[in-house]
Amino acid sequence: MTTTALPLALAQRYRDIRQHSERLCAPLAIEDHVAQPVPEVSPPKWHLGHTAWFFEATVLQACVPGYRQFDARYGFLFNSYYESQGARTARDRRGGLSRPTVAQVLAYRRHVDAAMLALLAVPPSPPVRELVEIGLQHEQQHQELLLADIKYILGTNPLEEAYEAKPRDDEQAHAEHAREPAARRNEWIECHGGAMPIGHDGPGFAFDNEGPRHMVQVSPVALRAALVTNGEYLAFMRDGGYTRFELWHAEGWEWLQSLPRRAPLYWHPGPSDAEPWQHYTLAGCLPLDLEAPVTHVSLYEAYAFCRWAGWRLPTEAEWEAVAPRLDWGRRWEWTGSAYLPYPGFRAFGGTASEYNGKFMLNQMVLRGASWATPAGHARLTYRNFFHPYLRWQYTGIRPARDLQVASLRWNDQ
Amino acid sequence: MTTTALPLALAQRYRDIRQHSERLCAPLAIEDHVAQPVPEVSPPKWHLGHTAWFFEATVLQACVPGYRQFDARYGFLFNSYYESQGARTARDRRGGLSRPTVAQVLAYRRHVDAAMLALLAVPPSPPVRELVEIGLQHEQQHQELLLADIKYILGTNPLEEAYEAKPRDDEQAHAEHAREPAARRNEWIECHGGAMPIGHDGPGFAFDNEGPRHMVQVSPVALRAALVTNGEYLAFMRDGGYTRFELWHAEGWEWLQSLPRRAPLYWHPGPSDAEPWQHYTLAGCLPLDLEAPVTHVSLYEAYAFCRWAGWRLPTEAEWEAVAPRLDWGRRWEWTGSAYLPYPGFRAFGGTASEYNGKFMLNQMVLRGASWATPAGHARLTYRNFFHPYLRWQYTGIRPARDLQVASLRWNDQ
Amino acid sequence: MTTTALPLALAQRYRDIRQHSERLCAPLAIEDHVAQPVPEVSPPKWHLGHTAWFFEATVLQACVPGYRQFDARYGFLFNSYYESQGARTARDRRGGLSRPTVAQVLAYRRHVDAAMLALLAVPPSPPVRELVEIGLQHEQQHQELLLADIKYILGTNPLEEAYEAKPRDDEQAHAEHAREPAARRNEWIECHGGAMPIGHDGPGFAFDNEGPRHMVQVSPVALRAALVTNGEYLAFMRDGGYTRFELWHAEGWEWLQSLPRRAPLYWHPGPSDAEPWQHYTLAGCLPLDLEAPVTHVSLYEAYAFCRWAGWRLPTEAEWEAVAPRLDWGRRWEWTGSAYLPYPGFRAFGGTASEYNGKFMLNQMVLRGASWATPAGHARLTYRNFFHPYLRWQYTGIRPARDLQVASLRWNDQ
Amino acid sequence: MTTTALPLALAQRYRDIRQHSERLCAPLAIEDHVAQPVPEVSPPKWHLGHTAWFFEATVLQACVPGYRQFDARYGFLFNSYYESQGARTARDRRGGLSRPTVAQVLAYRRHVDAAMLALLAVPPSPPVRELVEIGLQHEQQHQELLLADIKYILGTNPLEEAYEAKPRDDEQAHAEHAREPAARRNEWIECHGGAMPIGHDGPGFAFDNEGPRHMVQVSPVALRAALVTNGEYLAFMRDGGYTRFELWHAEGWEWLQSLPRRAPLYWHPGPSDAEPWQHYTLAGCLPLDLEAPVTHVSLYEAYAFCRWAGWRLPTEAEWEAVAPRLDWGRRWEWTGSAYLPYPGFRAFGGTASEYNGKFMLNQMVLRGASWATPAGHARLTYRNFFHPYLRWQYTGIRPARDLQVASLRWNDQ
Repeated sequence: MTTTALPLALAQRYRDIRQHSERLCAPLAIEDHVAQPVPEVSPPKWHLGHTAWFFEATVLQACVPGYRQFDARYGFLFNSYYESQGARTARDRRGGLSRPTVAQVLAYRRHVDAAMLALLAVPPSPPVRELVEIGLQHEQQHQELLLADIKYILGTNPLEEAYEAKPRDDEQAHAEHAREPAARRNEWIECHGGAMPIGHDGPGFAFDNEGPRHMVQVSPVALRAALVTNGEYLAFMRDGGYTRFELWHAEGWEWLQSLPRRAPLYWHPGPSDAEPWQHYTLAGCLPLDLEAPVTHVSLYEAYAFCRWAGWRLPTEAEWEAVAPRLDWGRRWEWTGSAYLPYPGFRAFGGTASEYNGKFMLNQMVLRGASWATPAGHARLTYRNFFHPYLRWQYTGIRPARDLQVASLRWNDQ
Repeated sequence: MTTTALPLALAQRYRDIRQHSERLCAPLAIEDHVAQPVPEVSPPKWHLGHTAWFFEATVLQACVPGYRQFDARYGFLFNSYYESQGARTARDRRGGLSRPTVAQVLAYRRHVDAAMLALLAVPPSPPVRELVEIGLQHEQQHQELLLADIKYILGTNPLEEAYEAKPRDDEQAHAEHAREPAARRNEWIECHGGAMPIGHDGPGFAFDNEGPRHMVQVSPVALRAALVTNGEYLAFMRDGGYTRFELWHAEGWEWLQSLPRRAPLYWHPGPSDAEPWQHYTLAGCLPLDLEAPVTHVSLYEAYAFCRWAGWRLPTEAEWEAVAPRLDWGRRWEWTGSAYLPYPGFRAFGGTASEYNGKFMLNQMVLRGASWATPAGHARLTYRNFFHPYLRWQYTGIRPARDLQVASLRWNDQ
Repeated sequence: MTTTALPLALAQRYRDIRQHSERLCAPLAIEDHVAQPVPEVSPPKWHLGHTAWFFEATVLQACVPGYRQFDARYGFLFNSYYESQGARTARDRRGGLSRPTVAQVLAYRRHVDAAMLALLAVPPSPPVRELVEIGLQHEQQHQELLLADIKYILGTNPLEEAYEAKPRDDEQAHAEHAREPAARRNEWIECHGGAMPIGHDGPGFAFDNEGPRHMVQVSPVALRAALVTNGEYLAFMRDGGYTRFELWHAEGWEWLQSLPRRAPLYWHPGPSDAEPWQHYTLAGCLPLDLEAPVTHVSLYEAYAFCRWAGWRLPTEAEWEAVAPRLDWGRRWEWTGSAYLPYPGFRAFGGTASEYNGKFMLNQMVLRGASWATPAGHARLTYRNFFHPYLRWQYTGIRPARDLQVASLRWNDQ
Repeated sequence: MTTTALPLALAQRYRDIRQHSERLCAPLAIEDHVAQPVPEVSPPKWHLGHTAWFFEATVLQACVPGYRQFDARYGFLFNSYYESQGARTARDRRGGLSRPTVAQVLAYRRHVDAAMLALLAVPPSPPVRELVEIGLQHEQQHQELLLADIKYILGTNPLEEAYEAKPRDDEQAHAEHAREPAARRNEWIECHGGAMPIGHDGPGFAFDNEGPRHMVQVSPVALRAALVTNGEYLAFMRDGGYTRFELWHAEGWEWLQSLPRRAPLYWHPGPSDAEPWQHYTLAGCLPLDLEAPVTHVSLYEAYAFCRWAGWRLPTEAEWEAVAPRLDWGRRWEWTGSAYLPYPGFRAFGGTASEYNGKFMLNQMVLRGASWATPAGHARLTYRNFFHPYLRWQYTGIRPARDLQVASLRWNDQ
């Protein structure tokens, strides 16, 4: 990882990114900052506090002699999963903590910001610059989590109030509601396969899990230009997709039995069979747009849909090989790849060594980005990962299919 | 049940009691209204909404033609356990609901208050008066729950912030910190036993579970004038009380194995062995007052303490027989009686029929009242009840012992 | 407790009772001795081992100098819940233990029997005699458990094989299938109430929980001569009894939601609506006899049935007052009384001090006996107890109703 | 998949394999056939019944007109996870079923064998031959499971009785106790990496998950000739391996917190610190042989050990590339590869389509074989798979390390 930003630019970047987190929370009521309806959804004020703590623990306490903690007890409250940083509130108990208040958390952020900006007023050493960059990337990750968590908090509440007044799909091609042009649905981008490099190896920031760049063997494959749309997913549902065991992983089939409604998260049946499905968006409940890419599906659903359609999910290598020719970035695209270290993986040093590596088990990789990913945070080599049953992120489905190319298999070499 | 209040007095009483609930929440931050750290602790804003809904569902919708609901969806949010009132949020999911906001809940209360006060502007019929009275008593019950829940929300938070600036023990004999006069600890109030009436049978309000008044046979018994103090309880702890299985119910012994700290709730060890235990109170963390009555103990602990001391818990009949000569009201006193219907028990009519009767299983009776019980709500015949493992209420221990009276057993008849 | 048996008689009684346990297991396959389909059903070989261990631990090791244990590790395997006897296999793991084999368990029994009979060859001291008597009564309790557990093991197996070839109802009035004479169903046995003694206080054995004898106040009540029959219970079912929340305890209603079939345990619908219900008996699956007393119902079901019928469950005092005039003994009769210590309760001494007292919480009393109770084991003062949700014992329902006697309430005294 | 066996040879092979399953159970007591101490350990009689049912359901009912089932209810009892074959006993309830008895299960096997041998008396068609072959391979898989399950049933029982009188390590190089020659512990087998084929593509049977053969890119790597020994693992333990979070997956660290003893399964501390660890083997408890390969470790432990030692687990491709030069087959070797379909994976047809594919999620691949694998069942391309926390199989650890070869990375192509 190398970071080339000038110190002043870094300070400005720090200011911008930090403010953006707070701007995302601005439309919320104070009450919305506290709730944790399910363990994977953290209270927004926890995100605000945790991202401040991250700078405090990894940069200020580590690199600034004489730095005075805002409150020594905040580590216990805002440490997420860093064993090196000591004991902490259990992840599923965050919503039980009414204090510190939102105002206190914002004061904590101000305290951290003052110390950080003082640090960044003079050119920091490269190691410090790297820690700051990790902290900023970390904050951007939490910005996307914030939007997903806010959507869950408001959208699973029976009152289904909106986060914002107006759908954002009008101007932004990558917005929550952006449609898949119909023409793309028959367009497949081919890759003839063979040995190809994947992973990060350039200048600019990347997480440790994106490297090292290395060769992988890719089979001949085509990825569809369009993501799976709501209309296509509805066809799967109407064809009994949720009732045909042969389409599902054993574990997905079991998951299905306990699902309250067999549909993507946030879908609600219309008031009558003749009326369309509704889905909850950050702008409130809207009729389902059949042309928009389906979202909030689990890996199980993505897999079963593909089997039903005669397709499959791409691997992450296939995705990375083809993605330069795709218009990606609206949905996190489930892949068929398990989240494992690349050959020669080396974790970040220091506290950040726990950032990624220890989660490389029993999770699946998602590639691309979503409309909720902060500008400048997406990368071709980015590896997102979630457990297969999770679907509160803006997940989506990219179809892949094997190319029947006669002469590209190993026995021809 | 007969209620003799004049209509105007009833309206005033309604106003007073309703305002008191909101006054109790006044010191809270907005954030404190939302949290539900454990299933039995409801978010304060839920209490505020639920007590309004109770009037709406049992009085306004039932008795006021043309009453317009504030929001038809609020029943789903604020119904606690009334099957007759339809589906509802699961009890342990209340903390996941950030909306309605506190302001919206207060607006809901204003809406209900306006309709209630309009109704009470003219003398209501006796059945309506009774429903109103049940609603007011219900609200008072929730006022005590509010204080216990607030204490839990603030007191189990690592920041342990105070609810109020100053302990209330100075002026009020029945306050959280009121001491047990030392002289009382050797004073035992005797009851020579025999057939005695218990239960409510007078004018004035009582819950359905307090009647009918009926005869019970009471053994010769003495109840101690003083509740068990923190100092006495500490002696039990120092004598290995928590490690001696023979003192405990089998179920209590099992409960004990999973207890994070073997002490009453809210007790914290001092910074060194030489320093006193601390306990969290609504005024923050204070050194344990050895003269104050122990509180926040489970039935299991109350029972084990008594066995250790050579005493036992009184039955509710013994309590009711002796209580007129006791200075009770600081702690809810665990009894050795299961919560069961009195002979000839008849539940309230209508929606309130689910109020008490359906919980008469696997719970134990507590008698008396606590310092947190609203003024005017305590009664000699009052039957409170909780599961044996619960201790977030202001529970306490009243020792009883059998009187060795030679000639009062059955064979003397 | 006093036991008056002569030593030789005691030895013979020991032999008879011990052999009876093994006779009950004689029809079983070896495999049937091992299974534990649910935690409350113990493997039959565990019962055989546990009852031997009970004599070993409470009599032989305590009173016979130089007694050599059969295998020092058997305590860990066969101790049920005696903390004083050290660590033990968790109750729900008994079915995971294939060893010792049935043959080894029987050898263990022979070893214990030899030592016990040597001990009983000369007149034992009264304390030893009492321990032996407790051991024999304990073994008889396990004989009834054995039959219930065997029924569960065979009857919940899809193959539903029979334990015995032929129903035992032909000759025995108290057999599993004995009918309730129709005339009894309109016959009510009245008790005019008042102060009455209950509890054991005579010569002959009783468990510690049956005493001391003491006075209780009984309301005027009538108990029906007949138990509730299958036909009556079916009427409740057909009238929607399982779907009307107002008949149920809150906890019972919740229990109901997870019940795979809403009917007593072992009932199966007939192949068509026109055909009768079947029920599994120890002699295999048979058409439901509408005249036989319903059995295998939980307390929740017994309570809901009574509310539906306009009756209630008797208290244990009412039962004991009326039972001398009832023909009881076919079913364990759920009462409305919680299992609590009688006033002045004193537990057995020694190891047996854990026998009863520590379970006096959150369980309900059953009175009478069932056809499966060993001859000579039933007593008017016997207090059986189970958690309200359990129904694999031969439980039944005895209706009670308040007598509307004008002048017998307390205020007439 | 092609199978070249002649029909008569197939019949003989059928006889041999089927008899071998029963021979494995011969040393067991009847009781040992019934127990299921944990959900993943099935009762031996269930294995005997299930493997018969597999032939009945996939071959006899599918291909033999007029075949009469032994008992139509056995499908419910012996179907493991085939949705296409209808409802079945939940996996964790198998131990609750005492019937059918072992004798009845053996009779079932005789019934199936007679029909199978009649079928095999004349040359079966290729599709039938394939189904038979799958059934035989399936039975061999259960033979290994049988040994692991038997070891668990006997070895976690406090009596720790032996399955066989005498350790088998004397003559058999691949036996449970075979040592790793000391010289091998410094010997590393190198692979210079590059594109290499993996997967099955020859004549002879392979499971569907082993193909198709395809190219993968392998990094320069060395695998150690010797498996990790007990002595090496002990060094890891003594160096605090189980207490250093940085060595573990987050999920492994959590798993560790609930582990009753921090050591491989079946290890017991010696009676004093000076005395060696004991471990339970099929021949009973023996002193730990420090030269034997460690076994019964979870993936978490294998991973943490390798991190501690500065090594890593090999991927399955690395393993398959190097294995022809390894002496493998004593332990199932955990790899760092998730169990996922190979590119172009096609499942078996018919009932066997559920055999492998639906489990390709959240499990890790093990390669090689163990001493308990039946002769003739091991293959270089074999892909075994288990959840990371499971360790009752004969698992082991094969160290790998990256080769620092300067010029073999992608950027040199």
